[in-house]
Amino acid sequence: MSKHLRNQLLRLLLEQQSPYISGEEISKQLGCSRAAIWKHVQELRNQGYEIEARSRNGYRLISKPDRIAPEEINFYLQTEVLGKEIRYYPAITSTQESAHQWALAGAKEGSLVIADQQTTGRGRLGTSWVSPAGTGIWMSLILRPNALLKFASHFTLLAAVSVFEAIQSLSSYPIHIKWPNDLLINKKKVCGILTELKGEQDRVDYMVIGIGLNVKQNDQLPSHATSLEEAAGKQYIRAQVIAQILQRIELCYMEYVKEGFAPIRKRWEAGAQSFFGREVQAKTWNGVIKGIAEGLNDDGALIIRSEGEKRIIYSADIQMT
Amino acid sequence: MSKHLRNQLLRLLLEQQSPYISGEEISKQLGCSRAAIWKHVQELRNQGYEIEARSRNGYRLISKPDRIAPEEINFYLQTEVLGKEIRYYPAITSTQESAHQWALAGAKEGSLVIADQQTTGRGRLGTSWVSPAGTGIWMSLILRPNALLKFASHFTLLAAVSVFEAIQSLSSYPIHIKWPNDLLINKKKVCGILTELKGEQDRVDYMVIGIGLNVKQNDQLPSHATSLEEAAGKQYIRAQVIAQILQRIELCYMEYVKEGFAPIRKRWEAGAQSFFGREVQAKTWNGVIKGIAEGLNDDGALIIRSEGEKRIIYSADIQMT
Repeated sequence: MSKHLRNQLLRLLLEQQSPYISGEEISKQLGCSRAAIWKHVQELRNQGYEIEARSRNGYRLISKPDRIAPEEINFYLQTEVLGKEIRYYPAITSTQESAHQWALAGAKEGSLVIADQQTTGRGRLGTSWVSPAGTGIWMSLILRPNALLKFASHFTLLAAVSVFEAIQSLSSYPIHIKWPNDLLINKKKVCGILTELKGEQDRVDYMVIGIGLNVKQNDQLPSHATSLEEAAGKQYIRAQVIAQILQRIELCYMEYVKEGFAPIRKRWEAGAQSFFGREVQAKTWNGVIKGIAEGLNDDGALIIRSEGEKRIIYSADIQMT
Repeated sequence: MSKHLRNQLLRLLLEQQSPYISGEEISKQLGCSRAAIWKHVQELRNQGYEIEARSRNGYRLISKPDRIAPEEINFYLQTEVLGKEIRYYPAITSTQESAHQWALAGAKEGSLVIADQQTTGRGRLGTSWVSPAGTGIWMSLILRPNALLKFASHFTLLAAVSVFEAIQSLSSYPIHIKWPNDLLINKKKVCGILTELKGEQDRVDYMVIGIGLNVKQNDQLPSHATSLEEAAGKQYIRAQVIAQILQRIELCYMEYVKEGFAPIRKRWEAGAQSFFGREVQAKTWNGVIKGIAEGLNDDGALIIRSEGEKRIIYSADIQMT
């Protein structure tokens, strides 16, 4: 209960509009002693919150650490289903692995695993994903869509368009989708998405959408990558970005359930305008295909026109040449 | 090494054509002392092998227990890839769960989990599968096909037709496939198959084919189920049946890789002749559909003609009325 009280106190401080909130007011709203408030203020300070205490005026939040613990995310969250259960780890091997274990043990739809650091983060096609402590958003979301396996690729594009729109809503610089679900700023990768699933016969049992989003890195990044802060030159509150992403995924997901793939596809294509018409090189399991990225088919597969022929690309590592 | 020697001794006894094999001959072939042979013969007897020892003639295998440990299966196995690594358990919660864990840890294609007894065996659509000790074949096979998720349902039918043909090759009584992959004898269920998979984006990462085949049960079965021995009135060697199933799956799998779904579909339809044209009732996620089972489409989905309309059934519990 003590942790619950601390979270309520934090919420009061975060929501406080006038500069100070008095100890008396807090004590009244939370139904606890002023000594208890003082104890929790100390604990919040230990967590990195800068809290001013004036004997006449009360308490004031001066600055807060960029934490992504559940109470921080909850503060920004406006979803109905997604992110209602969160497992947060300061460090973990891989949020994706953890989410699979949780899903197998019966996690509800919308359950989220999030970590400040991944020691063995995973990317697409067996690659690794570098996830240094406190620099980005490393999260895995569990969905349980009532969907056939043949439509699984729709969710890959749904996830991409959701994160694309979430970032767009928080900033104004140009961001682009690269098929199937990388997000680029200035031709540099800022976000990778890995959708994995467990299926029974031809139906999805559960799906784990892994999102790796660079937020705060600066000079530690390789030359082909960037971060939101490097691109925008301003600071982001990771908990807010996470809440925004969950919000967008929920909206897209509800739209997909109601209206199918068509509207998602349209919005995906809007985000990928700079990708179509470009010369690309697709490294597939059966060799390399070069040509012009032309569009999507109904499966969400990429159509490349190569030497006059239409080629359909399902899985590939794409390079824009 | 002692276990290896015992398996070699077992192989010599199993392969022995003339009634007795002399201690001298065994000693020569295995490069061990006659005292060591005697010790291993005692151990085999403890496992249930009936071995006669005559001071003049040597050793003779009189009868063997119906064991399904790897050395027993290997004796019958003629595959190139499947069943080359086997994990055998006298009792386990679920071979399917165990195979998933093994696959996640990097199990090779063709790895097999098998158990004499499952304490919480699983069936299709969240049902349980009763797997009493020593009475059936409870096994889970790991495949790593280079396949798109949209073709996953082909493997469900591939597994069904493989087990169908394996059983047919070992007996002469009529057996039938019920869509998508139950096997029936006298309208009673003898085998259930559960295909599960892990996917990344729109591609199969690995697949686990779970097979539950009733072999020896008699009066313990519910009225809608039967076993091979109940139906045939003869005894089966489970290790031989397992080897035969793996052999057929390997052949079908190779055929599928080379020629696609068409030949598998044709053979599946041959096994399901008694199913088509019948009145069926399909319990789907969206309600019950009654009609005549008409055929398969290219996805392997079931076509039912219901009130003049063609209905495509992807996942359902089917009852033949």
